[in-house]
Amino acid sequence: MKTQVAIIGGGPSGLLLSQLLHTRGIESVVLERKTRDYVLGRIRAGVLEQGLVKLMEKAGCADRLHAEGILHDGTLISYGDQMFRVDFTEHTGTPVVVYGQTEVTRDLYDAREKAGGQIAFNVEDVLIHDADTDTPSITYMVDGQAQRLECDFIAGCDGFHGVSRQAIPLDVRREYEKVYPFGWLGILSETPPVNHELIYANSPRGFALCSMRNENLSRYYIQCSLSDKPEDWTDAAFWQELKRRIPADQAANLVTGPSIEKSIAPLRSFVTEPMRWGRLFLCGDAAHIVPPTGAKGLNTAASDVHYLFEGLKAFYADGRTDGIDSYSQKALARVWKAERFSWWFSSLMHRYPDQSAFDLKMQVADLEFLASNKAAQKAMAENYVGLPY
Amino acid sequence: MKTQVAIIGGGPSGLLLSQLLHTRGIESVVLERKTRDYVLGRIRAGVLEQGLVKLMEKAGCADRLHAEGILHDGTLISYGDQMFRVDFTEHTGTPVVVYGQTEVTRDLYDAREKAGGQIAFNVEDVLIHDADTDTPSITYMVDGQAQRLECDFIAGCDGFHGVSRQAIPLDVRREYEKVYPFGWLGILSETPPVNHELIYANSPRGFALCSMRNENLSRYYIQCSLSDKPEDWTDAAFWQELKRRIPADQAANLVTGPSIEKSIAPLRSFVTEPMRWGRLFLCGDAAHIVPPTGAKGLNTAASDVHYLFEGLKAFYADGRTDGIDSYSQKALARVWKAERFSWWFSSLMHRYPDQSAFDLKMQVADLEFLASNKAAQKAMAENYVGLPY
Repeated sequence: MKTQVAIIGGGPSGLLLSQLLHTRGIESVVLERKTRDYVLGRIRAGVLEQGLVKLMEKAGCADRLHAEGILHDGTLISYGDQMFRVDFTEHTGTPVVVYGQTEVTRDLYDAREKAGGQIAFNVEDVLIHDADTDTPSITYMVDGQAQRLECDFIAGCDGFHGVSRQAIPLDVRREYEKVYPFGWLGILSETPPVNHELIYANSPRGFALCSMRNENLSRYYIQCSLSDKPEDWTDAAFWQELKRRIPADQAANLVTGPSIEKSIAPLRSFVTEPMRWGRLFLCGDAAHIVPPTGAKGLNTAASDVHYLFEGLKAFYADGRTDGIDSYSQKALARVWKAERFSWWFSSLMHRYPDQSAFDLKMQVADLEFLASNKAAQKAMAENYVGLPY
Repeated sequence: MKTQVAIIGGGPSGLLLSQLLHTRGIESVVLERKTRDYVLGRIRAGVLEQGLVKLMEKAGCADRLHAEGILHDGTLISYGDQMFRVDFTEHTGTPVVVYGQTEVTRDLYDAREKAGGQIAFNVEDVLIHDADTDTPSITYMVDGQAQRLECDFIAGCDGFHGVSRQAIPLDVRREYEKVYPFGWLGILSETPPVNHELIYANSPRGFALCSMRNENLSRYYIQCSLSDKPEDWTDAAFWQELKRRIPADQAANLVTGPSIEKSIAPLRSFVTEPMRWGRLFLCGDAAHIVPPTGAKGLNTAASDVHYLFEGLKAFYADGRTDGIDSYSQKALARVWKAERFSWWFSSLMHRYPDQSAFDLKMQVADLEFLASNKAAQKAMAENYVGLPY
């Protein structure tokens, strides 16, 4: 089999790239390790930057997003019983859009299927060959059958645990990592959100986040120990702990109900450099992970897809290689900004086991500074809605 | 002996308070452990916020400061060979004034002497009595003679190692501290400054600061190991190291010469709460220390003096106690902001022995964000020129 761009990974990055390439008549094949239902069953973030919204428009997949997405003009931040608001639209002229990653992925699958896009599911034993030549290829198994896909370029959109990053030799690759000493216990419940905007809460008992997917689907998180297991937490215990971490007037409004999903995620900052090796390009989680505070994961994957799409478009339209040659540099410049913001916001909002009394005072001083200083709020808002591509 | 306000410590805080009280006809006595020459021989910071400049005007001591002080509309920040400028005047409407702490102290001594102010030097064995009553007093020795000073109020302006803070019982006092794992090796040299503005430099070899006292008196610092001693560093070694830490084009312009002072200072963040106990009020270093990055030490002492002066003024003019009752809260609110800024700026600019590769990348990302983001520059500038009293 032969295609122009082989895309490893059928998550939102791979699908968005495939659909964008399709708008320019560039052929691609998507290889996905799991089933479509499995991919759509993954619960992920749900706050979209305008940059991603514009990419979805460009891909022709933004109708439902515009119909169902909820615009958020700001966010609430609490510490103890204090709460303040950062107004995104006032400071940047743009809101963010609350729309689940699952929904983004579903819209992209629908578009790809409608366009007759080639997506192979249940793909096993993926191997990348000759990525440092002009004739790369991928071998893999489907239903016990060995397959070979020849291509011009390979996009590695297969996440943190995928094979793409590993295909770049260790002597070329440099990795940067920070593992945070806590996790997020998250639940999904069919209840109205406690507030029409998100609440990021720093409490003496640890971080909490009140988020949502839509007007009757809430997503709540609490900072937990890495040794905790979801089954250690009954729904009742979760709701009780959440209420203790958000301001009393918010807790009083919290509607609780049974959880329909409950899971614990570790927090990690990770970047690999470079993001290109020969004709292999890494996108999204394959190259970088952010802690979820600030919702930069999917959005940063989207900016990678943008830079790669622009590079491939120029290559196929005009034979220009400057876009693909500068892909790693351009993508990483924005990745590090998102890493900085996510690390900063995580550091601001969580309790750390090794914080001294002075460190805690600095955290409160940082929160009070953000609460009271318009310039600091503007800097925060610019990052939250997404720095320009 | 009897006075209205007994001031322990004849550094800039104590003298400024004494002189301000004098303008309102409030009597004070200043007790200083050392001689005037010793106090004036101490080399300290030299960047004044407008708040301090205004207090010096109010004290009638700002003529020489206005004649000789150098206005700085911005500062330079370098990392590696990159350098950018933060414009204070553009972002805040106000510059800072470069004028040595030694000069401030000299002007205050001259004013106090001209006004017949009472300053006792070589004061030993200072003891504070009955600070928690309406009749506090201080006993001390001068020239082998025991003395006793009765007063309405005591201002503890005697620095980090003074007796004032220790007079507050431990069960009332809460202390917060961070000790940084490096020092600053500083020299003073009669050479023109390398640049007409300050350069704060983060280099792979550690922090450096190019500062000045006037147009022919430069003050330079380099981050050093806490185990270093000034005598370990020849002038030649200092200049060589400094040149390696600032951008090459700046290093090329550096005029070197013999050092006329060379010393190493540790870096510490420290705050004690509360800053008032009964009729004892702590001001400046007696209550808090900042690392010197950002020059907030003298300026934060000045805001303490402002709040205490306003409180005492209201007490003696109208019998009102609200100002002195809220002194600790008001002073600490601003102190913690200055602590936050000094800690942040120190964290941004120094190399730490335990920094991981990821931490170093975050530091560069923070610097690049500050270099490129106007809102972040404005937030920095507002802190640097001094938050409002």
